[in-house]
Amino acid sequence: MSDNKPSIPKGTRDFTPKEMVRRNYIFRSIENTFKLFGFQPIETPAMENLSTLLGKYGEEGDKLLFRVLNSGDFLSGIEKEDILNSSLAALSSKLCDRGLRYDLTVPFARFVVQHRNEITFPFRRFQIQPVWRADRPQKGRYREFYQCDADVIGSDSLINEAELIQIIDTVFSDLNMRVLIKLNNRKILAGIAELIGKADLLSKITVAIDKLDKLGIDAVLEELRSGGLDEREIEILSPLFDLKGENSEKIIFLRKYLGKSEIGQKGLDELVEVLRLASLTRLNCPLELDITLARGLNYYTGAIIEVKTSEMDMGSICGGGRYDDLTGIFGMPGVSGVGISFGADRIYDVLLHLNRFPLEAELNTKVMFVNFGSKEIDYVIPVIAVLRSLGISAEIYPETAKMKKQLSYADAKNIPFVILAGEEEIKTQTLTLKNMKTGGQERIELGNLTERFNKLL
Amino acid sequence: MSDNKPSIPKGTRDFTPKEMVRRNYIFRSIENTFKLFGFQPIETPAMENLSTLLGKYGEEGDKLLFRVLNSGDFLSGIEKEDILNSSLAALSSKLCDRGLRYDLTVPFARFVVQHRNEITFPFRRFQIQPVWRADRPQKGRYREFYQCDADVIGSDSLINEAELIQIIDTVFSDLNMRVLIKLNNRKILAGIAELIGKADLLSKITVAIDKLDKLGIDAVLEELRSGGLDEREIEILSPLFDLKGENSEKIIFLRKYLGKSEIGQKGLDELVEVLRLASLTRLNCPLELDITLARGLNYYTGAIIEVKTSEMDMGSICGGGRYDDLTGIFGMPGVSGVGISFGADRIYDVLLHLNRFPLEAELNTKVMFVNFGSKEIDYVIPVIAVLRSLGISAEIYPETAKMKKQLSYADAKNIPFVILAGEEEIKTQTLTLKNMKTGGQERIELGNLTERFNKLL
Repeated sequence: MSDNKPSIPKGTRDFTPKEMVRRNYIFRSIENTFKLFGFQPIETPAMENLSTLLGKYGEEGDKLLFRVLNSGDFLSGIEKEDILNSSLAALSSKLCDRGLRYDLTVPFARFVVQHRNEITFPFRRFQIQPVWRADRPQKGRYREFYQCDADVIGSDSLINEAELIQIIDTVFSDLNMRVLIKLNNRKILAGIAELIGKADLLSKITVAIDKLDKLGIDAVLEELRSGGLDEREIEILSPLFDLKGENSEKIIFLRKYLGKSEIGQKGLDELVEVLRLASLTRLNCPLELDITLARGLNYYTGAIIEVKTSEMDMGSICGGGRYDDLTGIFGMPGVSGVGISFGADRIYDVLLHLNRFPLEAELNTKVMFVNFGSKEIDYVIPVIAVLRSLGISAEIYPETAKMKKQLSYADAKNIPFVILAGEEEIKTQTLTLKNMKTGGQERIELGNLTERFNKLL
Repeated sequence: MSDNKPSIPKGTRDFTPKEMVRRNYIFRSIENTFKLFGFQPIETPAMENLSTLLGKYGEEGDKLLFRVLNSGDFLSGIEKEDILNSSLAALSSKLCDRGLRYDLTVPFARFVVQHRNEITFPFRRFQIQPVWRADRPQKGRYREFYQCDADVIGSDSLINEAELIQIIDTVFSDLNMRVLIKLNNRKILAGIAELIGKADLLSKITVAIDKLDKLGIDAVLEELRSGGLDEREIEILSPLFDLKGENSEKIIFLRKYLGKSEIGQKGLDELVEVLRLASLTRLNCPLELDITLARGLNYYTGAIIEVKTSEMDMGSICGGGRYDDLTGIFGMPGVSGVGISFGADRIYDVLLHLNRFPLEAELNTKVMFVNFGSKEIDYVIPVIAVLRSLGISAEIYPETAKMKKQLSYADAKNIPFVILAGEEEIKTQTLTLKNMKTGGQERIELGNLTERFNKLL
């Protein structure tokens, strides 16, 4: 038993009631929107078999997996020499069969393959759960954080892309947050790589281009050069770097620029159709074709979506895209999917910074009963039960403490109404209701309680 | 990339949409009741420092903790000899600084001490989160399961106990599940041990008595004997084993039986007062004084509460009690608390067995639009947006598949209404609404859509 000041692991957080209510406000908005669009919830375990997770997030990702030590005799079956001579990675794989989930996409792919016979395709699922990454903690980056994902799997119709864009628009309108939705298509990027005759460098080119926003043109050119592109090839790329104007202008430019690249033209066709379908309903958020958008993950094959707020400097707060073969890694090839993921923690930080959380009335107890002592308690307990049966959140101060202390408690908890019932109230079968905001008091007859509170709240 | 059939770790579960809706029905009932009684939500990280967890659950509990391998070079600072010569426990403590939370009570105690300056006491908090135990999985026992806890900390008023009993009563009434609430007091058990002059054997006596229900009288007597009680002492205990009748009769018996045991009489006083306070509101569930109720955990110091269903054979589905010094282990002594914990997984199993989940209408998309092709899509997309803006969950079948396939999808997802809009409907600016239950169809004019659906749903 230690009596050191207790703490929690680096990069993790406790959530106090005040923070919980705010977070739940965001989760509820996202969840309600997912449901409105016909998506259904699933959940997967925090721990997955390491064989499910390893090799799915690149070498860097493998290192960032939290591994769970095998329970019981975790050394059984390991030779002592192995311990002394194995690499860290090899040894950790011997010590650990399980790891904490790193994102929701790979567990979802595993879920789809495992439950393929119970699922009706196309499958529209959403999932809101924490994920864990052994990243170096820093501002806005945590080792435990929530992802809120919606995916459609088993349909390659572009209607899905358009609907996901509508979901994004609905959520951020609902949260009263101005954002810019950026759209690209991986096939256009492939077409560009084809144009300069370096299809094999697609990954390097897109990774470099993706940094344009963050690092600026010079750094990107440097990276392209060191990635193996010569000046002629960079020359071909360069018109893309300052592509500006309306979506329609960009489309006209790209139609010509992509020329005979079949894959590039196909990507542009898809993008044009998604823009058209999405615009069949009125969007509140601007939707912008951004050719520099690539996003890190290599598994996108079609649409690429990213959302940033225009109200403060904060990275991507939502992103996603189409992946043509997500479940192939688990032995179920040829199933196309498309999805988006909301970063609830960043959205929280933005709304907090902008002071845009709504009044948190739902956080609080609506009515507190002052505790005057045993006889008075017996009088008010049935009254509390009546209020609760009306759906009114109510509590009694449990101790017979000084009035001042009880009222400060109500104040600290932001409780709007306090009920006082002492000898006088018992005698007259009444209650005294105090409005904590105005300080005003009124006497209510027991028989009129329901009526009075129906009016009040 | 493996193409083995994917699986999840033993003792963990995936939750499909159907299961999620049912689970959320239980969580929502518990959460709403907690809020109704003025409890506020908190959340703590899945990982805690091992120093927070170790030594809090007994030797057996320490073994059941899931430990998380240190990230990066987990061997750094460990001598090779240490690896070869350390005990498993010692070595695992070197390899792992963190573990997965084992329950919600210890993290809550840690939270209270860590945030003591931000908290208004008495602090009524609830917490609904998963916990992990490396237990041998078996029917109804999982390695990842949810706990739903409510505690009041910083008040030793017995009103709290009475309110927790009311919460239990409200939740199970709401879930339409018949249960028996059992109540005991640890001080009565201490009084009994005092009576037979073996206060030091309290723990052994209570552990044995606790098994009366499960193992029967003979096994308990055997355990008491082997625990060091002689026949005379067992003779003193024996009237307790078949204590029957109304609570009032048991109280009269105990008042006499406990005689001069000060702590025993105090326990009885507390119990009588809790029964009295709880009965000031009408309870739907019977509340029974059960002197054999001890519950495994040693930290209870006053009331002990346990709930079982009378409708099927299933262990405890809710339990709790008062603990006088929970935060003392983290350096904040003398703070009394009382709490209860609902076992959502067992409640789920009971409701499923009894077929008592309500109609899961909220699970489903309310309206599916059939996809007849590109022109028709353009016509219906704005219509879907209107329905969604009314809060009606709607989706469009994303592929232009055969009608039969689209309708089977709606059927499989239990979608009650399907809208068909082909050439004819576009021409007349109407929609055809099909009721999937009755098979009936009707034509709706676009302008009457809102009105018609407000009536329908």
